[in-house]
Amino acid sequence: MIEIGEKEFQQAVNTIKFLSADAIQKANSGHPGACWGVADIVLELWADFLRYNPKDPQWIGRDRFILSAGHASMLLYSMLHLAGYDVSMDDLKRFRQLGSNTPGHPERGCLPGVEMTTGPLGQGMAHGVGMALASSMAKARVGGADFSPVDYRVFGLVGDGDLMEGISSEAASLAGHLKLGNLVYIYDNNHISIEGNTKLAFTEDVGERFRAFDWQVIEVNGYDKKEVRCAIKHGIEETERPTLIIATTVLAHGGFEMENKAAAHGSPLGEHVISEAKKAAGWDPDQKFFVPDEVRSLFKRVTDAKVKEYDAWQESFKAFETNAENAAMLNTLTGQVIPTELLRKMTDATGNKGDATRKLSQKALIAAANEIPWLVGGSADLAPSCKTDIPGAGDVALSEDGNDVNYAGRNLHFGIREHAMGAIINGMTLSGLFRGYGSTFLVFSDYLRPAIRLAALMELPSIYVFTHDSIFLGEDGPTHQPIEHLSALRLIPNLKVFRPADGVETAAAWYYAATNDRGPTALVFTRQSVPAIEKNADFVPKTVLRGGYIVKDAKDFDVLIIATGSEVGLARDAIALLNESGIKARLVSMPSVNLFLEQDAAYKNSVIPAGYGKIVTIEAGATALWRGFAGLNGLCIGIDRFGASAPLNDLREKFGFTPLAVADKIKDFLK
Amino acid sequence: MIEIGEKEFQQAVNTIKFLSADAIQKANSGHPGACWGVADIVLELWADFLRYNPKDPQWIGRDRFILSAGHASMLLYSMLHLAGYDVSMDDLKRFRQLGSNTPGHPERGCLPGVEMTTGPLGQGMAHGVGMALASSMAKARVGGADFSPVDYRVFGLVGDGDLMEGISSEAASLAGHLKLGNLVYIYDNNHISIEGNTKLAFTEDVGERFRAFDWQVIEVNGYDKKEVRCAIKHGIEETERPTLIIATTVLAHGGFEMENKAAAHGSPLGEHVISEAKKAAGWDPDQKFFVPDEVRSLFKRVTDAKVKEYDAWQESFKAFETNAENAAMLNTLTGQVIPTELLRKMTDATGNKGDATRKLSQKALIAAANEIPWLVGGSADLAPSCKTDIPGAGDVALSEDGNDVNYAGRNLHFGIREHAMGAIINGMTLSGLFRGYGSTFLVFSDYLRPAIRLAALMELPSIYVFTHDSIFLGEDGPTHQPIEHLSALRLIPNLKVFRPADGVETAAAWYYAATNDRGPTALVFTRQSVPAIEKNADFVPKTVLRGGYIVKDAKDFDVLIIATGSEVGLARDAIALLNESGIKARLVSMPSVNLFLEQDAAYKNSVIPAGYGKIVTIEAGATALWRGFAGLNGLCIGIDRFGASAPLNDLREKFGFTPLAVADKIKDFLK
Repeated sequence: MIEIGEKEFQQAVNTIKFLSADAIQKANSGHPGACWGVADIVLELWADFLRYNPKDPQWIGRDRFILSAGHASMLLYSMLHLAGYDVSMDDLKRFRQLGSNTPGHPERGCLPGVEMTTGPLGQGMAHGVGMALASSMAKARVGGADFSPVDYRVFGLVGDGDLMEGISSEAASLAGHLKLGNLVYIYDNNHISIEGNTKLAFTEDVGERFRAFDWQVIEVNGYDKKEVRCAIKHGIEETERPTLIIATTVLAHGGFEMENKAAAHGSPLGEHVISEAKKAAGWDPDQKFFVPDEVRSLFKRVTDAKVKEYDAWQESFKAFETNAENAAMLNTLTGQVIPTELLRKMTDATGNKGDATRKLSQKALIAAANEIPWLVGGSADLAPSCKTDIPGAGDVALSEDGNDVNYAGRNLHFGIREHAMGAIINGMTLSGLFRGYGSTFLVFSDYLRPAIRLAALMELPSIYVFTHDSIFLGEDGPTHQPIEHLSALRLIPNLKVFRPADGVETAAAWYYAATNDRGPTALVFTRQSVPAIEKNADFVPKTVLRGGYIVKDAKDFDVLIIATGSEVGLARDAIALLNESGIKARLVSMPSVNLFLEQDAAYKNSVIPAGYGKIVTIEAGATALWRGFAGLNGLCIGIDRFGASAPLNDLREKFGFTPLAVADKIKDFLK
Repeated sequence: MIEIGEKEFQQAVNTIKFLSADAIQKANSGHPGACWGVADIVLELWADFLRYNPKDPQWIGRDRFILSAGHASMLLYSMLHLAGYDVSMDDLKRFRQLGSNTPGHPERGCLPGVEMTTGPLGQGMAHGVGMALASSMAKARVGGADFSPVDYRVFGLVGDGDLMEGISSEAASLAGHLKLGNLVYIYDNNHISIEGNTKLAFTEDVGERFRAFDWQVIEVNGYDKKEVRCAIKHGIEETERPTLIIATTVLAHGGFEMENKAAAHGSPLGEHVISEAKKAAGWDPDQKFFVPDEVRSLFKRVTDAKVKEYDAWQESFKAFETNAENAAMLNTLTGQVIPTELLRKMTDATGNKGDATRKLSQKALIAAANEIPWLVGGSADLAPSCKTDIPGAGDVALSEDGNDVNYAGRNLHFGIREHAMGAIINGMTLSGLFRGYGSTFLVFSDYLRPAIRLAALMELPSIYVFTHDSIFLGEDGPTHQPIEHLSALRLIPNLKVFRPADGVETAAAWYYAATNDRGPTALVFTRQSVPAIEKNADFVPKTVLRGGYIVKDAKDFDVLIIATGSEVGLARDAIALLNESGIKARLVSMPSVNLFLEQDAAYKNSVIPAGYGKIVTIEAGATALWRGFAGLNGLCIGIDRFGASAPLNDLREKFGFTPLAVADKIKDFLK
């Protein structure tokens, strides 16, 4: 911590505010209100507390700063520029322009120092909980009480929107439960949302809510530097509970007639207001994108202090590394190397017997987890149904007396909080220390879609496990029976969806999910048993990673049948009946439509000959997407209505998913 | 309220428990734990407080009972049977069987007395808030302080799952804010969830959380009849705040070794346990689906008392009806008659000038709202962007001093709580007194998908308004730019999605949404301006309700172009360029894919001739679904990747959505 004079602090705040406002004005688009409201607080946090090194932005020991109120992106960009990150003035000038590194909302990968993509409200808040949990869990694995290289803190700036979103209650409840004392969030309580004063819709006692979640809650005047500093200090010192600092602020603080105006949230302040504010600060109103020398020199001192802290950390790290076990374990977590023979070990584990794919999934998961210590996850209170617990690996849970959390455990318990689960496993994956997975029923994938989409946008390899994947879950009925979900997930860019048909496909799907580095995977499994599927002689498990392949061929086939998951066995049995009528079929299993479409034309053509006209698709879900394979003249067997509550076999009869019904439909089709 | 002896109460409780257990055992599937845990409380509520008449289950003045913990369906079915509803013993015996009225989770429309479909957790809790709000808002419109026929209370049974889900925090915060004193929820606090003790994941102070939301919170022993009765009474008497009664209960209460076992949540108790429990209660363990005479006679007395209360209400209602104004207003709300000439008035309002369809939407909405007092709604803090406020109609908001709520208003402010918004407008629509609408950006439709799906499953005509419908919203960037959402919504069974191209399509889409009775509608609008589209001479606005139609035809066309929304104008301009090259095109506008697919073959054929091979589709979103129109050999122009932050015109260039780029692609395609 360095000494900063009152005047130079104010100059720096002004610089942040004017840089932000100038960029927003130039783009004629952006959200100045929050930038001006919390510049003081964010500067205080960055200058005096946040551990970072602009020259080593991926430093594992850095504190994470999450701008959950992502619309205040220019505040973060301005701060990164001043703090010495590789963010140029030209980057700021190109705010919200095509191809620039400074998009409308912060995006992971665009700029160093941007920890994650934010904008959809509540997400940053909940992802940060995952990052904090990752540190706590990694600390339990690496290093000692005096030093651990993974001992970082998570700071975040959240707005009223974040706190109104349900996901923030889910995540905050878990953060309190898990005693994440390494989490400090500052709530920009400016009392203004887009429709006007928050009194319109938001009069709850936020502090009391968070105290109910077992958080430390501190209220401050956002412009009282001493209060703010003291609150952050208390937040850091409290290691048993997360901290929420409720900072009373003013939207567009210092923005004259735009102060406290809802319009200042999402529209440029206007040249006039910026001019007036610059004049009031003793600035030349015509000077844009300007950084006074004294501010440059202040940030030079700040950075020097940060680098000193960083160097001291590196010293400790060297000592830490001399312990070979320490170094190896850290390397395991951060390196995330894929062990050899992993896929073989996984297919050995699943074997080739009929079973519910959710059960085969558990075998594949256990085999993977044995080899990959950085694979951790859990369920939204459905582990016994989704089969995603790793027996004997220990729970991340409270001790009997409730005083401690077993961070060394591996099985997470998210409670019935699917949305936070999605965000938290993303946050854990973002940490670079773990790859997270989380499970629920497929129909409830709707509850976490915003988090899945964000992982896809960030190209983050989180793993979502969805079981009970069709109406054939049976008696629970249409509220629990997915119809549109498989296709709706396949539509999300960068997300790979797998719906395996048997043990080997299940193992390969998990293998892909655990080893793929560029985007999330959704693994979709049955509740009911499926048969083992005999493969062509030349089949090797890696073929599954092509997304689709020929399971069983026939010379001069009369029809080409594409099926997924539980319908591959059904198709096989229908083909046996067709064969009796002299009809020959090629059977294609398509565990991942997304991956198949990415294959080269030659491969795709070898599986589904271009222009071939007699195609049947079978999947117990919405058919619309399958027209892309069957064409307008093909036959798509599926379910385009809600299901029904009944035993499995009755549903098979009613919905025409028996070998006989399918064979008859195909015969009709071929006529 | 009638006098019930301790012994006969216990017998009735036993009857409910054994009926539930017998049915679950027979189905070999179901959730007995909660049924046995809260039978006492639910009986107390129904016998002593709930206003209902089993012979008039749609009675507008009835209290609503919401089983948010829908897995306890057999508890509700047993209660309905005993309470005299048209629910036979045979219905109970057919629990969870194909075609029965007693599906795994309660479904609206299956049985009288089932107010809504529940099962997906948190939904019932949040929908009930909408039902309570509907009563408060209707009361402000109909009747006086002494009597209003729409003055009902909403009671609900919620479980820990409901309260962990984020949607319940969103809805509870709003319910407290809106001072919904007509809401009483009982929390079945049995401390057991599927993965085990709730200590695993849920140690927050629920009571404190709800007090933070400004609820009255009362804690009781769930088996202390006096405490329970007293708490419900206090809940009813508190008219300024909603009430949460936290009832400590025991999962599978009285179920011997299954008591307090997580397994009792979702598996039958087993013949042995049921036998033992029946023996302990002095019952013949071999007697199944049995109702003792004394219990029949108790419920006869209860029902008589209920009917007496009902008759008294009818007396008051007669007096109320003598006031013609009263009767007319009530009739307006409950009759929901569509005024004549509504569509014409709406198309007059939107006119035929170019504009952003979100702005045209507001004109259509205002025109509809002028004619339909039962159309109410609001936004998740995006009214100024989504344009869904009705100027001058008044806000449902707090008075300046915070002491009163203006329920007579019409514009709702949901705050940044999309999920609760979806559920609350559903609940308002379920009331039979209003049709609710709610708005946010299209990309955030993901936040409320579970509520949309539930409306679709219930065939409930709620209206979801989604604006900023493509990457062409511009600078806010990929976090705010929908790609997959249009198609993902179209996949939900029973949901009708509209993406209008101009004023008349916008008016017709809103007309459909406001007048359709069988399922929800999603209305999707642009942020940016679109041009007015000139129509064929024979065009009438009702044609839009066909879902797709020929906008501009050409004799012996060379290509058939299907476009939606903002891309219809683009297609028109591209066609002008194609014409210059001598290429003739038919232009089809397809505002609702769902509706078009429901048209008869002759009509569909007249728009898109079967077997026609040169089809181009244009939509600024995922293309996969469009193969169903273009076939494998057609051209689907769309966007299958995430967008980018940039000004509109730069995005048009980059993503090839200019007339020139489109015309070139089509020329290439035709080669």
